[in-house]
Amino acid sequence: MVDTPRETDIAFLGVDGGGTACRARLADGRGQVLGEGLAGAANTTIGLEAAFQAITDAARAALADAGWDPALISTLHVGAGLAGLSLSRERRRVETAKHPFASLLCESDAHVACLGAHGGRDGAILIAGTGSCGYLLTNGRGRSIGGWGPVISDQGSGARLGMAAVRAAVAAHDGIREASTLSTDIMAELGGDPEAVYLWSEQALPRDWAALVPRVFARATDDDPVAVAVVQATAAEIGETVEALMRLGAPAVALVGGLAEAITPWLAPGCRAHLVPAAGDGTDGALLMARQHYLNQGRGSNE
Amino acid sequence: MVDTPRETDIAFLGVDGGGTACRARLADGRGQVLGEGLAGAANTTIGLEAAFQAITDAARAALADAGWDPALISTLHVGAGLAGLSLSRERRRVETAKHPFASLLCESDAHVACLGAHGGRDGAILIAGTGSCGYLLTNGRGRSIGGWGPVISDQGSGARLGMAAVRAAVAAHDGIREASTLSTDIMAELGGDPEAVYLWSEQALPRDWAALVPRVFARATDDDPVAVAVVQATAAEIGETVEALMRLGAPAVALVGGLAEAITPWLAPGCRAHLVPAAGDGTDGALLMARQHYLNQGRGSNE
Repeated sequence: MVDTPRETDIAFLGVDGGGTACRARLADGRGQVLGEGLAGAANTTIGLEAAFQAITDAARAALADAGWDPALISTLHVGAGLAGLSLSRERRRVETAKHPFASLLCESDAHVACLGAHGGRDGAILIAGTGSCGYLLTNGRGRSIGGWGPVISDQGSGARLGMAAVRAAVAAHDGIREASTLSTDIMAELGGDPEAVYLWSEQALPRDWAALVPRVFARATDDDPVAVAVVQATAAEIGETVEALMRLGAPAVALVGGLAEAITPWLAPGCRAHLVPAAGDGTDGALLMARQHYLNQGRGSNE
Repeated sequence: MVDTPRETDIAFLGVDGGGTACRARLADGRGQVLGEGLAGAANTTIGLEAAFQAITDAARAALADAGWDPALISTLHVGAGLAGLSLSRERRRVETAKHPFASLLCESDAHVACLGAHGGRDGAILIAGTGSCGYLLTNGRGRSIGGWGPVISDQGSGARLGMAAVRAAVAAHDGIREASTLSTDIMAELGGDPEAVYLWSEQALPRDWAALVPRVFARATDDDPVAVAVVQATAAEIGETVEALMRLGAPAVALVGGLAEAITPWLAPGCRAHLVPAAGDGTDGALLMARQHYLNQGRGSNE
């Protein structure tokens, strides 16, 4: 351990752990980025061990990218945003879990994304990725809306978009709704008949549903009627959540996540008028959080 | 076993095994009903052993209701309609499973419901219960549409209605949508906050979602806006499936299942015009099937 650290000696790692991938960014005490790393999903609901493994893998990759000794992992002060961590059940598990770092502070992925989007200042975001979640920071206090998974929440998320596309494809196959190129493609990809799709769906994780997103957007651009209906429904759900954040006091909303760029042209003009670009991403927010936490704890202290 | 049975000596049992309950009806060779029985869910997807236990329990209850010796269970010729049996995976399991009866023929719950609704003749039904499924019998050949569970299918089902109500309640709690008496009641019942609802939803079976149906209809009758929106969406999905059955050649559709009576006033007039009352229920259809199977096998033979 460094006893009397100078700013360039301290290393911070920001981790953004989503339902599909886990990104890490290594920076020194002045904020200089030294390396980046990528690993698998770090959603705590898929298991804390798997999530922590992903964080550790991403950290190792970032150290390697910076050309650092892997052993320096034990010197890192880490801030991590984790999908699933809006659950207090998951939060308690995370707080007592072992990790290989000098310190680790975990918050929800929405919290770090909001910090990153507004450079640590107050603001609001809507993450539309594999899941979805609105988040509002007011006087440093966070409030999340939505984000409770695709069954009871996650309006406008990639997982729900994928589910809607599969449901439309099965309905088209059964003759309940009109078929299209998209619905035929989805049926073929998932096994050719509704029973195969059912068996696939029994095992499907949110990221498996969300994997259909690029294809649905590509077809919607080609005016495929099934794709257009699914994308429009997603856009309406995102619009509803943006309006809710504005009602709750957001000055503007940064729309981030895997769907943000593709869905924006489908949003109503009134909704688009509320959007602002994000200054940074969730990894930046996690870095800000790691640095702030280190300063709050007193330099050189170790938890 | 009876070697030279007379019509009054043969006993048939019709079983309608749904996702919530399993009903059995005992009749003699002339079709005289002798007793009825009720047991728990007989959905094959919750486990074949549990489903067969429910069938056996319902059979025992029907024997007791008729004042018969429980040992006579081994003389029964049974026809059963089972939820989940549209899956060929489940069908193969059922065919090789052990049972305590003289004979057992299983078909999907939709098949026996259609037989029952039209007295064994061609026709179509839409079952809207815990799950939903359209079924069309043409020249004795069945075709089902929908019915692949609430995630990828089951439009207009009780489970999907319950999911939509819970989703609306969580969105209202988070400030995304307007709250109502229904949304407040649902949040209170399921634990008071979205996290409690999330934990509940992780364990919830289709019948748990469908248990919310009576409350949603009661509130919709009182013009609760959340309830009205959920019921209208369900009515639209049922209307879509009725229209699909008509396009596929149904002369008319019998709407059956737990939601049938409550949803009918909410259907569009054009949809209601396609509906006919059911002559009998799925248990009647299962009895017709048991009897026909027995006659086809040759009287007195035992499989």
